[in-house]
Amino acid sequence: MNKVRVAIVGASGYSGEELVRLLLDHPQADLTTVTSRQYAGRTVAQVFPRFAHRPRARALVFREPDVAQMAAEAEVIFLALPHGVAAEFARPLLAANRVVIDLSADFRLRDPAVYEEFYGHTHPAPELLGQAVYGLPELHREAIRRARLIASPGCYPTSILLPLVPLLRAGLIEPDGIVVNSLSGVSGAGRKAESEYLFCECAESLRAYGVPKHRHLSEIEQELSLAAGQRVRIQFTPHLVPVRRGILTTIVARPRNGLGTAAGLFVLTGRIQQCYQAWYGSEPFVRVLDDKTLPDTKNVVGTNVCEIGWRLDTRTGHLVVISAEDNLLKGASGQAVQSMNLVCGFPETTGLG
Amino acid sequence: MNKVRVAIVGASGYSGEELVRLLLDHPQADLTTVTSRQYAGRTVAQVFPRFAHRPRARALVFREPDVAQMAAEAEVIFLALPHGVAAEFARPLLAANRVVIDLSADFRLRDPAVYEEFYGHTHPAPELLGQAVYGLPELHREAIRRARLIASPGCYPTSILLPLVPLLRAGLIEPDGIVVNSLSGVSGAGRKAESEYLFCECAESLRAYGVPKHRHLSEIEQELSLAAGQRVRIQFTPHLVPVRRGILTTIVARPRNGLGTAAGLFVLTGRIQQCYQAWYGSEPFVRVLDDKTLPDTKNVVGTNVCEIGWRLDTRTGHLVVISAEDNLLKGASGQAVQSMNLVCGFPETTGLG
Amino acid sequence: MNKVRVAIVGASGYSGEELVRLLLDHPQADLTTVTSRQYAGRTVAQVFPRFAHRPRARALVFREPDVAQMAAEAEVIFLALPHGVAAEFARPLLAANRVVIDLSADFRLRDPAVYEEFYGHTHPAPELLGQAVYGLPELHREAIRRARLIASPGCYPTSILLPLVPLLRAGLIEPDGIVVNSLSGVSGAGRKAESEYLFCECAESLRAYGVPKHRHLSEIEQELSLAAGQRVRIQFTPHLVPVRRGILTTIVARPRNGLGTAAGLFVLTGRIQQCYQAWYGSEPFVRVLDDKTLPDTKNVVGTNVCEIGWRLDTRTGHLVVISAEDNLLKGASGQAVQSMNLVCGFPETTGLG
Amino acid sequence: MNKVRVAIVGASGYSGEELVRLLLDHPQADLTTVTSRQYAGRTVAQVFPRFAHRPRARALVFREPDVAQMAAEAEVIFLALPHGVAAEFARPLLAANRVVIDLSADFRLRDPAVYEEFYGHTHPAPELLGQAVYGLPELHREAIRRARLIASPGCYPTSILLPLVPLLRAGLIEPDGIVVNSLSGVSGAGRKAESEYLFCECAESLRAYGVPKHRHLSEIEQELSLAAGQRVRIQFTPHLVPVRRGILTTIVARPRNGLGTAAGLFVLTGRIQQCYQAWYGSEPFVRVLDDKTLPDTKNVVGTNVCEIGWRLDTRTGHLVVISAEDNLLKGASGQAVQSMNLVCGFPETTGLG
Repeated sequence: MNKVRVAIVGASGYSGEELVRLLLDHPQADLTTVTSRQYAGRTVAQVFPRFAHRPRARALVFREPDVAQMAAEAEVIFLALPHGVAAEFARPLLAANRVVIDLSADFRLRDPAVYEEFYGHTHPAPELLGQAVYGLPELHREAIRRARLIASPGCYPTSILLPLVPLLRAGLIEPDGIVVNSLSGVSGAGRKAESEYLFCECAESLRAYGVPKHRHLSEIEQELSLAAGQRVRIQFTPHLVPVRRGILTTIVARPRNGLGTAAGLFVLTGRIQQCYQAWYGSEPFVRVLDDKTLPDTKNVVGTNVCEIGWRLDTRTGHLVVISAEDNLLKGASGQAVQSMNLVCGFPETTGLG
Repeated sequence: MNKVRVAIVGASGYSGEELVRLLLDHPQADLTTVTSRQYAGRTVAQVFPRFAHRPRARALVFREPDVAQMAAEAEVIFLALPHGVAAEFARPLLAANRVVIDLSADFRLRDPAVYEEFYGHTHPAPELLGQAVYGLPELHREAIRRARLIASPGCYPTSILLPLVPLLRAGLIEPDGIVVNSLSGVSGAGRKAESEYLFCECAESLRAYGVPKHRHLSEIEQELSLAAGQRVRIQFTPHLVPVRRGILTTIVARPRNGLGTAAGLFVLTGRIQQCYQAWYGSEPFVRVLDDKTLPDTKNVVGTNVCEIGWRLDTRTGHLVVISAEDNLLKGASGQAVQSMNLVCGFPETTGLG
Repeated sequence: MNKVRVAIVGASGYSGEELVRLLLDHPQADLTTVTSRQYAGRTVAQVFPRFAHRPRARALVFREPDVAQMAAEAEVIFLALPHGVAAEFARPLLAANRVVIDLSADFRLRDPAVYEEFYGHTHPAPELLGQAVYGLPELHREAIRRARLIASPGCYPTSILLPLVPLLRAGLIEPDGIVVNSLSGVSGAGRKAESEYLFCECAESLRAYGVPKHRHLSEIEQELSLAAGQRVRIQFTPHLVPVRRGILTTIVARPRNGLGTAAGLFVLTGRIQQCYQAWYGSEPFVRVLDDKTLPDTKNVVGTNVCEIGWRLDTRTGHLVVISAEDNLLKGASGQAVQSMNLVCGFPETTGLG
Repeated sequence: MNKVRVAIVGASGYSGEELVRLLLDHPQADLTTVTSRQYAGRTVAQVFPRFAHRPRARALVFREPDVAQMAAEAEVIFLALPHGVAAEFARPLLAANRVVIDLSADFRLRDPAVYEEFYGHTHPAPELLGQAVYGLPELHREAIRRARLIASPGCYPTSILLPLVPLLRAGLIEPDGIVVNSLSGVSGAGRKAESEYLFCECAESLRAYGVPKHRHLSEIEQELSLAAGQRVRIQFTPHLVPVRRGILTTIVARPRNGLGTAAGLFVLTGRIQQCYQAWYGSEPFVRVLDDKTLPDTKNVVGTNVCEIGWRLDTRTGHLVVISAEDNLLKGASGQAVQSMNLVCGFPETTGLG
């Protein structure tokens, strides 16, 4: 089988670096082009020394981004750019019949008004929103296979949607009053040289941020509302904690019919198990834990897996669901490659360990 | 003024170590006795090398615990022992007319049945519960001044009660449906040589634990119920994160009368400000932050201060309150010394920076 | 090509865990057997949750070690056992014509008297020492190809021998007066539940240990002496620093003929470059850096690569050489798999990224 | 006794922050002035939230630096400025008869030509070098008492000079061939927002830097040469390791008369013990460890203490000496306050725990 030729635009951040790694090692992909204004002219090995033992990394040179060249050299183009910038590359690449997998927020929202509300500027390419597919394979697999423009979700949304969507679709939890707390590793802030992300400001520091209205809420609530069939608003508090990679998300929700009696508890437990089993029992990258273990980011970092654990609290009648993922893999680049595998017809786990 | 002679029973853990430090440096206290079965015969300087430049640490020798000797050598005795063990020291020391400040859970609950439910054995000294005072000075200052038996609260309870009690007392929030997430540094697990607390198991790891029924819930809900004037149950999820010290607690609660209109929001904001100002405006160890900053454990570690920040979320109508403290100081030993200052008639901040 | 069937004895520590990972993913190996007294009866997925998304990890069950069974089920057996224990497995497995790759120190020393001096007990199988090959492929590749008993070197020796042996063989440095400082991540201490390796004792801690006579000196000096053609003794100080994985080694040595003049410096620089180029220019797992960069463990952790950087100090006339490796991969399990590839006739980089 | 009025110029970095903390708490000092171009107009509590519970921190406002004002408001002025800038403040303040304690490198070197060699520009005030005293109290206590201009040493020099100077003065070690490796916490790099000091670039990273000619070598070798009575050059390799604070230095030196026989070893051991005892037996801030323990930065961080441990290696005949200190306290601000205590006639340990 011929390999697919791929390009990465804006491969200088942490997600871009992981994407380079995955695509260098991908048995069905040929990474022909990487661009970065900052690194143009340097080899991948020089910019990311940890890849320097791969011959391809020593040969591949960062370029200035050039749409015509990319369209000539790649069938699939990954955009690892800030929001607002991705659209200007997506438009001509789509016009040239290329597949675009965008890791920014530009094509994740269906409603350009919501985009404007959360991102503070008008949407740069509203005419493309109709063809964009939200790139969470466990939720939209078939649409991804047929898509030309894939809006790969962010790290918080993935960690929240994977545990919640099945429960909302099955009507097992109330769609209102959901409380979500997430802990994120510092790589989630990107490779920006800002003093708040210095080692001495992060090690031995625990802090919430972005309270109360984080930008990713827009896509989270869009997808939750679709799943619930009604408008959903959640209470979401992200925290910065001193790990390099990983997100742990803890969700509190109310079961739809309460726990009531011991019999009710028994029934509900069974339904949640069945629900997750039906959704994720055959998924290669979602691992629903048994009742003896809880998710731990150290068990998913470096993999494309999202762990999900849950408990019914008989004291309070609440359901507690916890998920863990690698923010740079299942929360970014691994997921994007998973979508590429789908769109290219490769086995979904190819090149993802 | 004469110094008060003090003793520490069981000074080998992290809280005990901090207590030793605080009392060695306390200008009104004379640390006459430290006991530890494990370290008997060794000097404080040998056991805790970081104190070795203090002459007193080189002279003071750990002993086997001996109640008669302690009663002879100290007016105030701190118990830094596991729950279930503290009571056997408290009884004779109280009989000998000594002041006992207990850092374990043994005297924090008013109802021995609740103790048995949460700790799994009958209460070892139920006859003493009536005279025990819950040692959170910001809530029970006058009772602490008159107490002989002070049950100094744990780290999670302090981080949850300080932000919530004023709001419940003032009727500003609904007492039901409160969701609490806490992040704890690893010293909260003590100095136990268990593999789950090894460096390689904790660094780069984020995990919840004790879901859904943590032992400290018993004292937290006891005090919240007192404040609310009705039974309160909270949804509490503790997490272990890779810092040495510090607890960050994030609380979601519903304002009692909702936010309703912009005018309602304005009124509620003012009431919460006034409430916290009235409770904590003059407190030396509680710092209510303005609307530009959020708590960060690195700003309280090493101090006896609890930081509190809050936001009204106009999207959801929820109140989000966040607190930060040093689990070994305001969450343990600093708080115990604060109580000692009260019971001895010293200025409350003496020896606490 | 038929896969080789492999077994791991004692796969419960950090090196064993990495070995399991490498062999589960190895395209030419079939991991048929893993043993562990502690974990017998549990699946690999249960013991190491991070592998649980691999179907083979959910199927493979830890067993009690049984030599006859291993000999029946595997052609190559890895021993990841404490020193002194490995020999009792090696003897019958070799008798059964199996290939044994031992990660302990049992077969690294040629002289059983040196073993006794450094390890404190008589050698358990001195009759096997004659056939053991020191498993550092960059130094003993051809012997490894033909070996039945491979003594895979430890993490410190690898980080010291790779930079020093070429220089000694070429006569470019004086064999005496070499000073070596190494920094090791905490996984080097293994998964022992000892208080000195607790998170709170390691984070924010820097310390030397094992001064002045670390056990690994015996194999280091054996190999350096072979390279130099004379007895070599080095000054070696290992340090424990708060990273999970990685070793950084800094070596100071005197060039054999001094730097003398600027011309001498120029000549010496060229000779060192040529020496390393000749030795490592084609090596897939040794990366000699240019004069603008220095080794950093974060660029090798997760890989089987050893980075080497060097500088001539014109002020002092000394040569400073620095190496970085992942202590669990090039310093343990990756290297063992590299030897397996050689002994099995696979391309040397197979399964090693 | 009247308090001394003190000012800090350039109090925005990590050392400055620690200096603010020490002087706010100092019982004999009245911190009247803090300057920072970046923070002018903001209170100390706003800039450093961890001090916000101190009333003085809420009242004291950062100002633009103004020499006349400082001279009017303070008897002792601390300069926490980059090298090259300190001199322009020192000159007028000395002219105004103030005591200047400079934490930069500007006045540490006696020879302006060495300054120019290592710092790359001509010395900004060579006429002041004659009156500057190198502010290491354990070495130059009497001169510091009488000084008006104190050049407080940096973190690496302190960690190297305290262990080495007594041995060189006593003629116990050879002055040539000394090899020094230091490990530094990231705060040593200051609060610069540079990508190489981001959390994700430092956590799980070990690296050497500044090889082979670190700027601090100039003052280190100046003081070592003075102690030895001859020109001393050392081989010094600094490393960056993921702790916030702390320096660990490992030194290898050759005893002057070798170890020769067991008797020689016995004699040498006694002489080193006596040497350190004579120098440091009464020093409040130097702790020479016994032969069972080795220095650990976690035992000195937060204190003004330098720990020293040593071993004679009977295999190699070398002496290994290890020191640990807090780079921001004994390596910077604590030491500066120690000098202030001397110059003001306060007990030397005042305000230093």
